Amino acid sequence: MNNKTIVQTQQVTFPEPFTLKSGASFGPVTVVYETYGHLNHDKSNAILILHAFTGDAHAAFYHEGDRDPGWWDAMIGPGKAFDTDKYFVLCANVLGSCKGTTGPISTDPGTGKPYGLSFPVITIEDMVDVQKRLLDHLGIKKLLSCAGGSMGGMQAVTWAVRYPEMIHSAIVIAACHRHTAQQIAFHEVGRQAVMADPDWNGGNYYGAAVPASGLAVARMLGHITYMSWMSMEQKFGRRLKDKQALGYDFSKDFEVQSYLEYRGKSFVDRFDANSYLYLTKAMDYFDLAQGRKLSEVFKDVNSDFLAISFTSDWLYPSSQSQEMVRALKANDADVSYVEIQSDYGHDAFLVEFEDQSRVISNYLVKVQKERVGKV
Amino acid sequence: MNNKTIVQTQQVTFPEPFTLKSGASFGPVTVVYETYGHLNHDKSNAILILHAFTGDAHAAFYHEGDRDPGWWDAMIGPGKAFDTDKYFVLCANVLGSCKGTTGPISTDPGTGKPYGLSFPVITIEDMVDVQKRLLDHLGIKKLLSCAGGSMGGMQAVTWAVRYPEMIHSAIVIAACHRHTAQQIAFHEVGRQAVMADPDWNGGNYYGAAVPASGLAVARMLGHITYMSWMSMEQKFGRRLKDKQALGYDFSKDFEVQSYLEYRGKSFVDRFDANSYLYLTKAMDYFDLAQGRKLSEVFKDVNSDFLAISFTSDWLYPSSQSQEMVRALKANDADVSYVEIQSDYGHDAFLVEFEDQSRVISNYLVKVQKERVGKV
Repeated sequence: MNNKTIVQTQQVTFPEPFTLKSGASFGPVTVVYETYGHLNHDKSNAILILHAFTGDAHAAFYHEGDRDPGWWDAMIGPGKAFDTDKYFVLCANVLGSCKGTTGPISTDPGTGKPYGLSFPVITIEDMVDVQKRLLDHLGIKKLLSCAGGSMGGMQAVTWAVRYPEMIHSAIVIAACHRHTAQQIAFHEVGRQAVMADPDWNGGNYYGAAVPASGLAVARMLGHITYMSWMSMEQKFGRRLKDKQALGYDFSKDFEVQSYLEYRGKSFVDRFDANSYLYLTKAMDYFDLAQGRKLSEVFKDVNSDFLAISFTSDWLYPSSQSQEMVRALKANDADVSYVEIQSDYGHDAFLVEFEDQSRVISNYLVKVQKERVGKV
Repeated sequence: MNNKTIVQTQQVTFPEPFTLKSGASFGPVTVVYETYGHLNHDKSNAILILHAFTGDAHAAFYHEGDRDPGWWDAMIGPGKAFDTDKYFVLCANVLGSCKGTTGPISTDPGTGKPYGLSFPVITIEDMVDVQKRLLDHLGIKKLLSCAGGSMGGMQAVTWAVRYPEMIHSAIVIAACHRHTAQQIAFHEVGRQAVMADPDWNGGNYYGAAVPASGLAVARMLGHITYMSWMSMEQKFGRRLKDKQALGYDFSKDFEVQSYLEYRGKSFVDRFDANSYLYLTKAMDYFDLAQGRKLSEVFKDVNSDFLAISFTSDWLYPSSQSQEMVRALKANDADVSYVEIQSDYGHDAFLVEFEDQSRVISNYLVKVQKERVGKV
């Protein structure tokens, strides 16, 4: 365990119900979160990290006994992009997930059983509201930044719109301001795969067999959309798996088939099928403008922005980041935009650490200097 | 039925077994096919149309009583791209399909029951060999052209490599010379969706419930890959279905969800799940070069080529057509290449008739003039 900084996940329960975007009232909500680094005296150095779809609160450092660190450890730590020698970094698991924060797998105090599909349908805005209450609880009035990729980026830009006075900057990576028809369509196929599995049983599978086949199919599809055709070609091409020749049968001839199978199966072990449904639905509902002009939506925004996209990301293509940048510029917001050259597709935000780190660490220094007045 | 030219599907059975690419021997094979126009005296005006994945032999004209014509009727007929006043056009259903030619749904004469998974795994080359025997049967020694999009294009380029002396030209549309890892991956997800359906039952579902849910999921996914994000955005965007507001539930809020559901369900009514497995597998096995340089593969090619791709086709992108064109040019083959501007994605070959027609009709005149000596 040399040089491994150990971190523990913390939790807090908010007994007062939240009013969700749907209008429903829901509570209590337990939130699990982790923090890295130290909050300074005037509480001006806090950065909220927002995780993606299947992520969790464990963004950096190590859990006791673990071999692998948190999911963005390459970006968070002493001397790293989110420098824990300078910043107080925190990350909370989102509402609706299955990684500690209240979600469909949690016990409904009213029935003593898991919520399942009686859990309310939630939105990106609801996730942000829960995070806001966590900050209130921690006594943090304003964030130096909030930052995330993919669904995390959707939360970051939502923070800027929903709580404009509570953030100095938003770092929005590989994200969008609304889900397109194609993005909804891919999620719909995944959900239908889960729901087609008889073991899903209308969401009532806790304590019984989970809908493993359906969830695996959904994840296999997701995985294709997270990579680029180029990264798949480089990683697998047409290489055969454990074979000298094509089998001319329905076994898995190609490495890419076995890889997808592995990714599908391992996902079933670490993620809840109902959370899959709720979180994809939250993303599909994501649409900041809802019929208005996007520049209208950003009218009251008061933070600076850094948008990052990746050349080969076809799931959340650069054009979507650029749309946000244009609408922010139309409001004279201070916006930086970087398109990073990468073959890794949407996954690039979890892979391309060097370029992202340089861009983000410089950006945070600028924000701290210009908005908080520190160097 | 004014102005509707009626056509009937014909069929022929070849009792002698075929030696498949796998090495297996298989027969008898029944082939269904249609013909349009008239074979000229020296049999020099025949064009073979090669259908895509879920297509059939009914490429043009009308079946008695039908409201809709064949799948490429806009391209085939008097005065059209494949001008039946000039050419004798024929189209045969591929081996392994469920549209009349022998496939897994056909009765195994050895058992009196449908083949199901005892049907041999077949390849694009096997499909072409069956078509070749059909031409032998019809007494056609050389084709003016063979033409097809998608899986049809794979067959067209295979014709050029496998029977170089039997074709004057190949028209290869929205196709490739080999399936990439991403193309294999999308198919693998579809197959896993089918196989995950308990009703699939190892392929033995004939006479019982078909694997409707699994096949529908597979088709929904396929459909996304056939469209472009732009065509989905134009057709659906975030428009709601039969609703004034988001439902905040798991019903289908968005039009795109209902559309995919409809496409999935209607596919189940018209296609066999086992054929889905066999034909996707045939495409995944498709790799003309198999480790050699592609220019080596085209060394003995003796036909002219027209390659067509579409700007927004991300499933079989223009780069794959261009790869073929480069390798053919390296052999000094007579190759024309046209990239057609279209938002319709891979489906463009079934939609963009105006540009395709102009390009193809001019091309066929050129081939007939230069290769057959007629104007």
